[in-house]
Amino acid sequence: MPLNPQRTIDELKELRVLTGDENGAQRVAWTETWARGRAWLRSKLDELPVEVHNDAAGNTWATLRGASEKALLIGGHMDSVPNGGWLDGCLNVLAGLEVLRRIAAEGTPPVTVRLVDWADEEGARFGRSLFGSSACSGYFNPDDLRVLKDRDGVTLADAVRAFGVDLDTARAAGDELKHAAAYLELHIEQGPVLEDLGLPLGVVLGTYGVERHRFTFTGQTAHAGSTPMHKRRDALAAAAKLALEIRPIAIRNGGVCTLGGVTTRPGIVTAVVGECEALLDQRHMDADGLARQWAEAMDAAQRFAAEEQTEVRWEKIWSIEPIPFHPHLIELCDAAIRETAGTAPRLPSGPLHDAAEVARAGVPTIMLFVQSLRGISHNKIEDTREDHLRLSVEALDRLADRALEWVAGA
Amino acid sequence: MPLNPQRTIDELKELRVLTGDENGAQRVAWTETWARGRAWLRSKLDELPVEVHNDAAGNTWATLRGASEKALLIGGHMDSVPNGGWLDGCLNVLAGLEVLRRIAAEGTPPVTVRLVDWADEEGARFGRSLFGSSACSGYFNPDDLRVLKDRDGVTLADAVRAFGVDLDTARAAGDELKHAAAYLELHIEQGPVLEDLGLPLGVVLGTYGVERHRFTFTGQTAHAGSTPMHKRRDALAAAAKLALEIRPIAIRNGGVCTLGGVTTRPGIVTAVVGECEALLDQRHMDADGLARQWAEAMDAAQRFAAEEQTEVRWEKIWSIEPIPFHPHLIELCDAAIRETAGTAPRLPSGPLHDAAEVARAGVPTIMLFVQSLRGISHNKIEDTREDHLRLSVEALDRLADRALEWVAGA
Repeated sequence: MPLNPQRTIDELKELRVLTGDENGAQRVAWTETWARGRAWLRSKLDELPVEVHNDAAGNTWATLRGASEKALLIGGHMDSVPNGGWLDGCLNVLAGLEVLRRIAAEGTPPVTVRLVDWADEEGARFGRSLFGSSACSGYFNPDDLRVLKDRDGVTLADAVRAFGVDLDTARAAGDELKHAAAYLELHIEQGPVLEDLGLPLGVVLGTYGVERHRFTFTGQTAHAGSTPMHKRRDALAAAAKLALEIRPIAIRNGGVCTLGGVTTRPGIVTAVVGECEALLDQRHMDADGLARQWAEAMDAAQRFAAEEQTEVRWEKIWSIEPIPFHPHLIELCDAAIRETAGTAPRLPSGPLHDAAEVARAGVPTIMLFVQSLRGISHNKIEDTREDHLRLSVEALDRLADRALEWVAGA
Repeated sequence: MPLNPQRTIDELKELRVLTGDENGAQRVAWTETWARGRAWLRSKLDELPVEVHNDAAGNTWATLRGASEKALLIGGHMDSVPNGGWLDGCLNVLAGLEVLRRIAAEGTPPVTVRLVDWADEEGARFGRSLFGSSACSGYFNPDDLRVLKDRDGVTLADAVRAFGVDLDTARAAGDELKHAAAYLELHIEQGPVLEDLGLPLGVVLGTYGVERHRFTFTGQTAHAGSTPMHKRRDALAAAAKLALEIRPIAIRNGGVCTLGGVTTRPGIVTAVVGECEALLDQRHMDADGLARQWAEAMDAAQRFAAEEQTEVRWEKIWSIEPIPFHPHLIELCDAAIRETAGTAPRLPSGPLHDAAEVARAGVPTIMLFVQSLRGISHNKIEDTREDHLRLSVEALDRLADRALEWVAGA
């Protein structure tokens, strides 16, 4: 059976009908709709000479035994955000499925090939993304997870138990990576870079490191009418200066910085803002660049707090180091994309992906991006041109071929 | 009975015990605690040769008949915000009570003297301030008020009915102003100006005009990781520029401008802000100055929206014109304060007061301010030095004397 990239598009549409509604995809992890999508995937896998099982963290593995135990992994995630798009996560899985079909049709491969559907990449229900892949990498603390609840008060522990997962033993899923020699993941870009370049595909250099902090500026709540301008200690003014200053900081250092949420207290029209909270997200492909961005943001916040006679404190929300992908796989991916589309731009990934967890578990890892229209995802209007989708399946297939050869020869 | 300013302080403390708790004053209008405070006031009035009644809007009037029907009014409000201070509103009433005692002790005055306790100055429960005084001035629309509810869903109409007030007939309270020839009101400053000057008392020139608007900047929600800096349409950036620009606008024009509340949407750390709402309050003592401030704010908002490739719209929340007090009463107040405290600075009032409604009903009006410590009010830590409080009662008394003479001779 030769590779049939159109079949991937047809299957994506089939899945959309099965698990979406007028608001978009509804395959939120640990729900009935997600389970329906996974059962559908399983029915497709059952037509292939593969062994399928779920691991201790709920990830689904389809294994095509090869001449060697060494394994080439291709991954994605069937789960979506609520009202999600038709491509995010499931394109990766269904393109991988098509590649698996092509390899299986050619007989026993030189090394084992495995398709993995990671459990709960999005973290949409409990606010914790990369659930299944982090259980494999070991960056997974059951005690942090046990306390998480969804908006109905259901705990993560109870939700996963209904799917046969026990938080305390989930890290046993790490055994799945024992013979892993390479990991490949295709994903929509979810940003505007490839569209701006007018190119369908790109080599992903790695995932950005992230520093996420909550700043709180404290001034003095005061009457909007009776407080002269020079007597004010306006917490909003300090935060406003920070909102503008993070932009030159990002541009100077080559990363991205976002003030994504601002809350004012008391937050009424008749009072100077006494307290202002601001959520800062900073990302960079390089650890030093990330550290510089963060140091400059702290300096700026302190300077602005002093200028406005306010105080400032901050607390870390979350951070992760930059995760570069494997140098040789970057070259193989470059070659596969050149063969498919002529030009192979290289770009970092702003969003995190399961690939980051696999990479930090020590498995040589690479991703390729396909262009997103208008850079929009996590939304029902998320889209990619169908000719680009076909090219992406073809590029993944060529990459898989080269990676198989590399793993077999290693 | 000579004037006894210390008695005013003693009575303020008596009232605090009767109607406050560990969080401050609790005389919210149309509540049982407010009614208790008013009943206590009535018991004090019953010791004087005055006629006391409530008008159609719930205002309490104590009338000391004079040789002429022409009336000198002295006013204040017994109601407070929840967890309010010990002075806001009731100082005015109790100082007026002390002045009324002094005048009554001297026999029949040349003109009638009336003390008024306005109903619901604060608007704390239903969000509509100056209830009773606006019913008198006629700036009172029953249909606007009928729809107001408190946080428990009780309507303003039902709440006032329990106190004998009917929204549809409340404007009959305007008859109370028929013979009014002058209105005097003492109030704590609620701002830092007199404290900065190191002076106890000030002549109030009038109340600021106010323009209040809600701005909405609309950009594009985008992924904080995948959206390059130069591709962003950040609604927060446009609002941040406005938050900073309103300050030179205020200083240039001699008024005050406040961005008191900012709301970001989606307001999460991982997304560039797609929509940002900002509440702008602008005040000025002069109508042209107020209009200039507003025009400059609109210009700035449009310029920043364009710079950030966002859109902006705005809607008026509320406005009122500047209300200057009476020129001759300003001179009388100036003289009374000079006699009492040596120096009589003049300042506008940032907050609105019942005096503004009386003034726009056409009654010659004046206010005097006494220093607020740290400029804080609407809070249990609201305070004024006791020697300043005594001076304020004395100054009100001297002003009443001069105003009586002026009204009698007019």
